[in-house]
Amino acid sequence: MYRAKVFVTLKPSILDPKGKATYNALANLGYQNIKSVRIGKMFELEIEANTEEKAQEAAENAAKKLLANDVMEDYTIELQEDK
Amino acid sequence: MYRAKVFVTLKPSILDPKGKATYNALANLGYQNIKSVRIGKMFELEIEANTEEKAQEAAENAAKKLLANDVMEDYTIELQEDK
Repeated sequence: MYRAKVFVTLKPSILDPKGKATYNALANLGYQNIKSVRIGKMFELEIEANTEEKAQEAAENAAKKLLANDVMEDYTIELQEDK
Repeated sequence: MYRAKVFVTLKPSILDPKGKATYNALANLGYQNIKSVRIGKMFELEIEANTEEKAQEAAENAAKKLLANDVMEDYTIELQEDK
C-alpha cells in the first residue's frame, strides 16, 4: 500500500480571490507580517500497487484526469510506502 | 522573508464527504486501485520575519486563529527561508 499526497495549486498567473480574502482577514486580525496567502488543495490517496512506479503512475493519472484542472492548476505528488 | 505552507486536514474521526465523492468519481473512471481519498487545504504564506522562530510563530498563530478549525481539523506547518 502506498500513500500519495497530491498538492494542487493555482498557476502563479491565476488570481486567487479566496487567498486574497484570507490575506485580508489575517491583516484585519493584526498579522501585518503575513505578506501574501495563496490557497491550494491537498488530496491524500491510498493506493494499492505492487511497485512504487505503479503507485506513482496511478497518482499522476488521478491528478491529470480528475484532481487538477490543467488549464489553471499545477500539481505535485509526494509518494510514500505505507508499512 | 519566509515561506510557510500550512496543511489543514480533517481529523481522522471526521467524515469527508468531498473526499468520498472524489473516491467514487475515481472508481467510476476505473481507478480501482485507489482505496481512499481525503481532501485537505494548503495555505502558502509569505511571512516577513527576522528569525525562523518569529516566522514559525506567525504561521502557528494564523493557523490557530483563522486557517484551521481546532474542533474538526489538524494542521502542520512547513517553513522555509526564501532567498
